[in-house]
Amino acid sequence: MFLKNTWYVAATPDEIDTKPLGRQICGERIAFYRGPEGKACAVEDFCPHRGAALSLGYVENGNLVCGYHGLAMGSDGKTVSMPMQRVGGFPCVKSFPVIEKYGFIWVWPGDPAKADESLLPVLEWAESKEWAYGGGLYHINCDYRLMIDNLMDLTHETYVHSDSIGQDEIDETPVETSVEGNEVITSRYMDNIKAPPFWAAAMRENGLDENAHVDRWQISRFTPPSHILIDVGVALSGTGGKDADPSNRVRSVVVDFITPETESSHWYFWGMARNFKADDAELTKRIREGQGRIFGQDLDVLEAQQRNLESWPERRLLMLNIDAGGVQSRRVLDRLVKAEKEENSAAVNT
Amino acid sequence: MFLKNTWYVAATPDEIDTKPLGRQICGERIAFYRGPEGKACAVEDFCPHRGAALSLGYVENGNLVCGYHGLAMGSDGKTVSMPMQRVGGFPCVKSFPVIEKYGFIWVWPGDPAKADESLLPVLEWAESKEWAYGGGLYHINCDYRLMIDNLMDLTHETYVHSDSIGQDEIDETPVETSVEGNEVITSRYMDNIKAPPFWAAAMRENGLDENAHVDRWQISRFTPPSHILIDVGVALSGTGGKDADPSNRVRSVVVDFITPETESSHWYFWGMARNFKADDAELTKRIREGQGRIFGQDLDVLEAQQRNLESWPERRLLMLNIDAGGVQSRRVLDRLVKAEKEENSAAVNT
Amino acid sequence: MFLKNTWYVAATPDEIDTKPLGRQICGERIAFYRGPEGKACAVEDFCPHRGAALSLGYVENGNLVCGYHGLAMGSDGKTVSMPMQRVGGFPCVKSFPVIEKYGFIWVWPGDPAKADESLLPVLEWAESKEWAYGGGLYHINCDYRLMIDNLMDLTHETYVHSDSIGQDEIDETPVETSVEGNEVITSRYMDNIKAPPFWAAAMRENGLDENAHVDRWQISRFTPPSHILIDVGVALSGTGGKDADPSNRVRSVVVDFITPETESSHWYFWGMARNFKADDAELTKRIREGQGRIFGQDLDVLEAQQRNLESWPERRLLMLNIDAGGVQSRRVLDRLVKAEKEENSAAVNT
Repeated sequence: MFLKNTWYVAATPDEIDTKPLGRQICGERIAFYRGPEGKACAVEDFCPHRGAALSLGYVENGNLVCGYHGLAMGSDGKTVSMPMQRVGGFPCVKSFPVIEKYGFIWVWPGDPAKADESLLPVLEWAESKEWAYGGGLYHINCDYRLMIDNLMDLTHETYVHSDSIGQDEIDETPVETSVEGNEVITSRYMDNIKAPPFWAAAMRENGLDENAHVDRWQISRFTPPSHILIDVGVALSGTGGKDADPSNRVRSVVVDFITPETESSHWYFWGMARNFKADDAELTKRIREGQGRIFGQDLDVLEAQQRNLESWPERRLLMLNIDAGGVQSRRVLDRLVKAEKEENSAAVNT
Repeated sequence: MFLKNTWYVAATPDEIDTKPLGRQICGERIAFYRGPEGKACAVEDFCPHRGAALSLGYVENGNLVCGYHGLAMGSDGKTVSMPMQRVGGFPCVKSFPVIEKYGFIWVWPGDPAKADESLLPVLEWAESKEWAYGGGLYHINCDYRLMIDNLMDLTHETYVHSDSIGQDEIDETPVETSVEGNEVITSRYMDNIKAPPFWAAAMRENGLDENAHVDRWQISRFTPPSHILIDVGVALSGTGGKDADPSNRVRSVVVDFITPETESSHWYFWGMARNFKADDAELTKRIREGQGRIFGQDLDVLEAQQRNLESWPERRLLMLNIDAGGVQSRRVLDRLVKAEKEENSAAVNT
Repeated sequence: MFLKNTWYVAATPDEIDTKPLGRQICGERIAFYRGPEGKACAVEDFCPHRGAALSLGYVENGNLVCGYHGLAMGSDGKTVSMPMQRVGGFPCVKSFPVIEKYGFIWVWPGDPAKADESLLPVLEWAESKEWAYGGGLYHINCDYRLMIDNLMDLTHETYVHSDSIGQDEIDETPVETSVEGNEVITSRYMDNIKAPPFWAAAMRENGLDENAHVDRWQISRFTPPSHILIDVGVALSGTGGKDADPSNRVRSVVVDFITPETESSHWYFWGMARNFKADDAELTKRIREGQGRIFGQDLDVLEAQQRNLESWPERRLLMLNIDAGGVQSRRVLDRLVKAEKEENSAAVNT
């Protein structure tokens, strides 16, 4: 259950810099590589000659050369050449629209004719020198929508991440969920509290008194197909919260790009963008390691949840107020997937 | 093919002392934990909120708190509380009758209304200061009934355990099998033989001449659903066998609690109780290590047998006199399982 | 899709010298062992008593003794004895014709009545003192016919083995394929070229100038069911190629015995026989290690190809001129398998 006519994060640029990358996305086995002029390209990971995996090959003159018998595949899915062979009649493989932007390789796994670069999300922090970004990638054996649920309700931080970003005030403070078109926003404001360990450290890094009372905010924004950006931070209490003068606050964007692999597994690109000390590479590394550890705590929980749901497929889950973010996000997805299916069958019937 | 309205060993107390334990028993995914006043409890390992595994959570105020969003589950399967939520309408999960006794956690995976503590087996050695016990747990990928067969015919000791408890006399001595109600007893008496390595060591430990001729006995007793206690030992030849004066013999009870996990895997709680040198903890440890090694030799044999039976499901196995113990035990099980099914369908129809 | 009434390499003698070997061949689970007078024997790996794996047992007096309860199995699949039992009525298991020859254990997995030793291939190099042999075994998770394709078209050497035996001239030189009865021969002659690293080293070992220009040949010969012997070598340019005087050339036979395990996995016995420095055991070892590394490079490629073909079962592969060797070999197999099936059903109907 996923949208195909949309942009997903497929990889980070370093993953294809030295050799091709084979990765399954939305059920499509895809070979990613740097083609003509180093441009990121993506074709089906299937050599039309004998079915070898093109991603095990290498790049030469901008073509992806099959490592088995030397067939050179073009980025349009048409065979360019093969030693001693005429390739004009070779069957094509799929090629997939790809964009490299914001520090990610994006892929459109559906109908290439509908690919539209303007549908890419706009990520100001990724192009500003005032922001720094660090992140990583996890492969998780669960439906990608369980990760959406996870991130659209941060109540779980109190339990899963009690030693870092969790604190009792989170689940003592009501969450508000709103829907704006295809976006879902969940927000929580906790005023006049103590900063939890992660934020206390960030305050210290930023020259603020880590023991001071703060106003903390968490604003999760779901954008289809499965991007969740969370505006988070703390400001010295009473100075204006997330709109406080930068000298009084610490602010970050938690970045979550969730890419289905199959119906029951996904790739999770996580990271954090911050707009303080952007030049401090050591700090970027330290935050990334901390975040990697924290986000790794979710893996066991989500994979056990997936196994439970598969064992009891008939059980209906509760939909509480704290679940509204995930529930609303799924409704948006259901509506868009249905529209995509109708569009596909309409196209077939004309 | 297993009884559900009966007591099985589910765990040893140390397994739930510091955190909950998730374990599947007779197809039921169960979370075991220490609830009110430290009492062992068991509920379905499924949080009614979003399906998370309760066993990944923690215990607070006697409740099992879900590690995802803080739902507090009571030992009766009813939600006690959840931060910011009214839980009155939450669906229940199953709870399972549990008894902690004889150094084990026992569970009743079937209908709780039928659970009856008086049906628990009586284990004198587990409550007497004159006996010491040591044991362990193996997870084995085969039908639990293959382990019953294994233990109800000790002929295999000659082959599988030739360097410890096996000896040629075992399969040269006829075995006698009898059925007493739902119990099956298989006994073998080998008179005037040399003790095999394991028993020679036990004689030495006990101050007896390890080279003396002995009368050896093995009396396996199957009790439903799958408990097998084996009275084993050697006595100086001619002094009375298992009824000899304690100064002339070494005697133990081999303890086997066999708990189905699925149709093709089980938990095997093995151990040995002895009524000599009961205070010698070092000896307990040494015997446990030796027994663990010996019983580990059965694993490969049984798992390969399971794969063979799955590959050739149509083949009928032989039922020789040495197999009578296993065959009779399976007949008891077949009869009881059939009765349980009829009782269940009668209950449905009334 | 494999022939059963034929000889396959099942094992090397050292694999059964000290204990029985359980190995699945053409879907048959077989226990191999040294029976009467050390002769290699093979019976179904299934004890007729309780289904234990006979290969976990041991050999005594030429019989394969089940390690569970001591049943002694004869090499004809009939139970010889069992402690305290009359075995006359025990059901038989299959026994399989076995020949030990040429340094291999050969098995006939089909109808024993049709086994004919004269159908074994003739391997002169395996019985001549002028030749030395070294080889190894890989288990590969792909249809054995993908390995036939691989070896009947050495074009892939240019890509998969570019650092050892591959060179551009291979795929610049046309390959010729011919069919002689049930044999398929693919040959390629590359004249006046530089020797690639593997052959340059072989020339050096053999006292030839490794920088001299050479005429190189590769002649792959497929014989059913799945034996491929490749006559390979280099001779100083213009001295007669593979027929040159031995002082001017280096020649080997690449040995490939490909034995199906299941429909999607196989055992690959690879090796090299050479007719120079046959007494140099150190050289044999060095060549084997080099070849083992080179042939190991094919594994990933073939297993990824298998996964791709399973994912896209409906796609038709290309059959180019370079594929003719594999294509023709498969045609031979298709014809023989069809004939075997018709023979079997005719036998059933009479």
